Amino acid sequence: MEPVVHVDDVTWTDPPCPVARALDLVGDRWSLLIIRDAMDGARSFTDFQQRTGVARNILTDRLRRLVEHGILKRETASSGRRQIYVLTDAGRDLFTVIVAMRQWGERHAFADDEARSVLVDESGHPLAQLRPTDAHGDRVDVDSTSVIRTDPT
Amino acid sequence: MEPVVHVDDVTWTDPPCPVARALDLVGDRWSLLIIRDAMDGARSFTDFQQRTGVARNILTDRLRRLVEHGILKRETASSGRRQIYVLTDAGRDLFTVIVAMRQWGERHAFADDEARSVLVDESGHPLAQLRPTDAHGDRVDVDSTSVIRTDPT
Repeated sequence: MEPVVHVDDVTWTDPPCPVARALDLVGDRWSLLIIRDAMDGARSFTDFQQRTGVARNILTDRLRRLVEHGILKRETASSGRRQIYVLTDAGRDLFTVIVAMRQWGERHAFADDEARSVLVDESGHPLAQLRPTDAHGDRVDVDSTSVIRTDPT
Repeated sequence: MEPVVHVDDVTWTDPPCPVARALDLVGDRWSLLIIRDAMDGARSFTDFQQRTGVARNILTDRLRRLVEHGILKRETASSGRRQIYVLTDAGRDLFTVIVAMRQWGERHAFADDEARSVLVDESGHPLAQLRPTDAHGDRVDVDSTSVIRTDPT
């Protein structure tokens, strides 16, 4: 895993908060849809455009920013003819974020009779629900947790 | 848990995808920062504005949308004098998404010597890392999962 994404050019909204830093890097709808599609096999500009339906100028901007931040890397396809975009290790590690978004969407954004896509394992079974837990594996939630500030070690 | 958020007015970017639906509802930086702050005790317009530093017109818009979508609900404070914003059950259930964002930020967006906030349990210990698993509890990742379409049951 790379130690840190490329952030020299980022002005952080709330520097000590890891949630805010993550959102400064990938916290917009198109960036996260591009990451979703990259996880599902999209590689070329055209792939991303067709899957998301995003306007070309927005897609160009978001791909550039994701490359600058070290979430995607630009490579030349094996044919040697075109550029493709591949997730870096930090980008692949957003899988947990995408799964959390997916499971929340499944729980709250569908009526029972609406068709939906499903993320499955190699046996074709849906994943387990992600649940925050403490170090002992006991469930925690908003009420049983709190945010504290720490100084650098 | 409420069965579904309020989505009558939403035009979905990619209707069968739960990730895309979640992003259509909460997939922007300010909305997720507001949800983060609500989880950390922010209640009033002023609370949210001071914590995020967001412009008033953007905050007004995002609060309105989050209320319309059933992520926040508007209540009158016990003093009877002012409006406050409280997470609904669907909003509280975004805790997993916020924790996933936080843990990714911790792993990738900080240099070793930078101060950061920490989310802790009631004993003051950091949470366990969220890790996607299959139904048997075995770790899965981008390579060992795939997205399939299903028809409504």
